[in-house]
Amino acid sequence: MKLSQRVQTCELSPMRKFHPYEVEAQAKGRKIYHLNIGQPDIATPEVYFDAVKHFAAPVLEYAESPGVPSYLHAVQAYYERLGAHYEEADILATTGGSEALSILMQCILDPGSEVLIPEPYYPNYATFIRAACGEVCPIPTSPEEGYRYADRAKIEALIHENTRAIMITNPSNPTGVILDAAERQMLLDIAREHDIYLICDEVYREFTYNGEGLVTMGTLDDPNGNLVIIDSVSKRFSACGARIGCLISKNKALMAEALKFCQARLSVATLDQVAAAALYTVEQSYFDTVRQAYQRRRDTVMEKLHAIPGVTCEVPNGAFYLMAALPIDDAERFQKWLLTDFEDQGETVMFSPGHSFYATPGKGVNEVRIAYVLKEADLARAMDLLALGIAQYQKTMM
Amino acid sequence: MKLSQRVQTCELSPMRKFHPYEVEAQAKGRKIYHLNIGQPDIATPEVYFDAVKHFAAPVLEYAESPGVPSYLHAVQAYYERLGAHYEEADILATTGGSEALSILMQCILDPGSEVLIPEPYYPNYATFIRAACGEVCPIPTSPEEGYRYADRAKIEALIHENTRAIMITNPSNPTGVILDAAERQMLLDIAREHDIYLICDEVYREFTYNGEGLVTMGTLDDPNGNLVIIDSVSKRFSACGARIGCLISKNKALMAEALKFCQARLSVATLDQVAAAALYTVEQSYFDTVRQAYQRRRDTVMEKLHAIPGVTCEVPNGAFYLMAALPIDDAERFQKWLLTDFEDQGETVMFSPGHSFYATPGKGVNEVRIAYVLKEADLARAMDLLALGIAQYQKTMM
Repeated sequence: MKLSQRVQTCELSPMRKFHPYEVEAQAKGRKIYHLNIGQPDIATPEVYFDAVKHFAAPVLEYAESPGVPSYLHAVQAYYERLGAHYEEADILATTGGSEALSILMQCILDPGSEVLIPEPYYPNYATFIRAACGEVCPIPTSPEEGYRYADRAKIEALIHENTRAIMITNPSNPTGVILDAAERQMLLDIAREHDIYLICDEVYREFTYNGEGLVTMGTLDDPNGNLVIIDSVSKRFSACGARIGCLISKNKALMAEALKFCQARLSVATLDQVAAAALYTVEQSYFDTVRQAYQRRRDTVMEKLHAIPGVTCEVPNGAFYLMAALPIDDAERFQKWLLTDFEDQGETVMFSPGHSFYATPGKGVNEVRIAYVLKEADLARAMDLLALGIAQYQKTMM
Repeated sequence: MKLSQRVQTCELSPMRKFHPYEVEAQAKGRKIYHLNIGQPDIATPEVYFDAVKHFAAPVLEYAESPGVPSYLHAVQAYYERLGAHYEEADILATTGGSEALSILMQCILDPGSEVLIPEPYYPNYATFIRAACGEVCPIPTSPEEGYRYADRAKIEALIHENTRAIMITNPSNPTGVILDAAERQMLLDIAREHDIYLICDEVYREFTYNGEGLVTMGTLDDPNGNLVIIDSVSKRFSACGARIGCLISKNKALMAEALKFCQARLSVATLDQVAAAALYTVEQSYFDTVRQAYQRRRDTVMEKLHAIPGVTCEVPNGAFYLMAALPIDDAERFQKWLLTDFEDQGETVMFSPGHSFYATPGKGVNEVRIAYVLKEADLARAMDLLALGIAQYQKTMM
C-alpha cells in the first residue's frame, strides 16, 4: 500500500518529538521543566465553563457550517472594537487556527505553489503547506538582527510566478518579533503590487510588552481582498483545548471556496463555539493581568539568558516565545543529552530545537525556541538548569 | 490572486445548496419538512452533558495529539466488545469522521491517485479526495438493483496502477445498503490481492433493521493492514455537534504518517473528547429504542413511497437514508419548484437531489436522497407532500 509522497516530506512536531526521551527521564524520577510547548498555565475564564454548563438543547446538533451566529457576531464585534470593519460573512469559524490554515492552503495552493515565510517560523505551517502540495520559500533572518524580516527588497527578490502568498505571524511565534505600522503597510503593499495573498496569523495579538496596544492588519485599507487573517481563542483566552479559531477575509471569491471545505467537514464543535462566544465578554482587566504576568516572565527569562556567556538573543516584544542561539554544536543533540545524561538535583529542562523552525538546510542548528509559559520561579529554575546544562555539555564537546 | 484548481472542482454541499430558496419560502410563511439533512432528532444521552458539566480543570489545555486516553480507551473497549481487537495506538481521535477522512486522504493520495467508491456516495467524500489532489473512480450501481455494488468482477475491472483504495460506507449513506459477511470478506480479499487500502466508513453501524447485529470489518483477519475504519459518535449517540470521530487501522506505517497531521493540528477539542468517552457507557437499551424508532420511520416512508406510481426504491436495510428514482425529469429542478411554486396548506418538503451523489455525468438526475430523521407523523406528511408535488410537477413537465 502506498503512502503519499508529500506526507513523507512532513515531519513530526519538533515540540513533541523528544517525547520518548522525556518518558524515559520521568521513569528515572526526573522532574522536567517544559519550555517546549506553548501551553499557557493561565486559568481559562470561568465564562467558558459557565456557558458550557448552561447549554440546554436536548440534541447536540451540527452547527451551521460557517459557524454559530453568536460566535461569528462576537468575533465581528471584537474586530470592530479594534477599528477593523468586517461583516459576519467575512468570518468562517474553524477548528482552531490550525483548521483555518489548512483550509486556506487547500484553497490557494496548486502543486508547486510557494508561500513566502520569514524563517524561523511555526513548523506546522510547513505541514499545512505541504499537505496542500505547496512549498515553503523562506525569507531569511538572523539571530544577530533579532530575526527581523520586514525588508522590502529582500522579500520582493523572492517573489516569482509560483508565489501565492506571504505568510507571517504577528506577534511572531517563535521569535517574538512585532511589526511596526510602516512595516505592516509595506507588506500589504507588496502583496497588492504582486497580486498575492498576505496571510497574517494574529493569534498572539494580546501579548505585547512595549505598549503597542491591540493591533490588527485588518484596519488597513484592503480594496482587493489580499489580506487573510488567522485567529483563535487558544492563546487569547488560554483556551487551547477549545479548538476554536477563524478565517477572516474580505475576499469574497476566496471565502466562497473556503465555504466548500467548511460544508464538507459539516461544522465546528457546537458547545465550544457557544462557549467561545462567551469568552469575548471577558473584561479588559483580564488581559492586563495576563500581559503583566507574561512580561515579568519574559524579563525573568531574558535576565537569566543574557547572563549565559555566548548566547545571542534580542529581547522579544511579543507572544510568549523567544529564539536564542546557544554556544553549543547542535540543539537536538543537546536536548537529547539533557534528557538522557544531565540532571541537577533530579531536575532537567526541555525546549524546542531550532532546526525544525527553518526550511533552509543547516540553519538554526544551534538555536532553540523557549516558551515562557511557566510561573516565574519555575522559569528562573529552568533557565538555571539551561545554564548549568550548557556549561556541562560544552565540556562533552571538547 | 489565484485560487487552487482543485478547490474549483469541488462543489457546495448538495444538502445545503438550496438554502437560499429555503429562506425565501420560509419568508413567505411556508413550513418545510426537512428530509435533506441527516441530523437526527433523537436526544443526545445525558451522560454527555453531565461529563461536560463535571469537567473541573482550571485550564482548558490542548489534549494529546493522538487523543484523550479515556476516549481512545472507550473506543478500543467498544471494538473489543464487537470482537475486533485493536490496540489504543491503532486509534487516532479526530474532529468527526470528517477529519479522519481528510487526514487519511492526505496520507495516501498523490496527484492523479484514484479511490474506488460505489456511486451514489456521500458527496463530501469527493471533496476530501479532491482536496488531497486525488480523483473519485465510481463503481456503478442502479436503483433497479437496489444500488448493490459488491461484485468482484465489476470492482477488479476498475483497479489499475493509480488506484490507492476502495472506499465504502457500511451501512450505506445514501442508499441504506448493507454488506453480508461474504461480501465483506470479498472486498478485503480484493484489497489484499491488489495491495490497496480498504476504507470502511462504519459510522451508521448501529442502524440496521434486519437483525444483522453490530458488524465491523475490524473482525476480519488483516495481517497486512489493508483495512482502515472511519468512525464517529455523531450518529451512534446523536451527538453530531460534538465533532468527535476516529481513524482506526493496524497499519503502523499509515498511522505513523497520520500522526504527523494530528500533531500539526495539535489536538481535538478536549471537553468533547472527555464527554464522548462518557457516551460509550450508554446502555444497550438506548440503541434498541433508537433502532426501533428508525425502523418504524423507515417503514412509514417506504409504505408511502411505494404507493407513488413510477417510483423505484428497494427497501433499505440500514443507516437512515434511502435513494429513490422518481418519475420526474430533474430532481434539482423539482426541488427548486417545490420551494418556489408548490405548497399544500402552506407546507412543502426538501430532500437532496441525487445528481451530486454521483461522479458519472448524467447519472442520478431523477433520483433523490431522503433522510428519515423526523417523527413518524411528520415523515408521513412529508411523503404525502412529495406525492402531491410529483403529481402536480408532472403536469408542468407535459
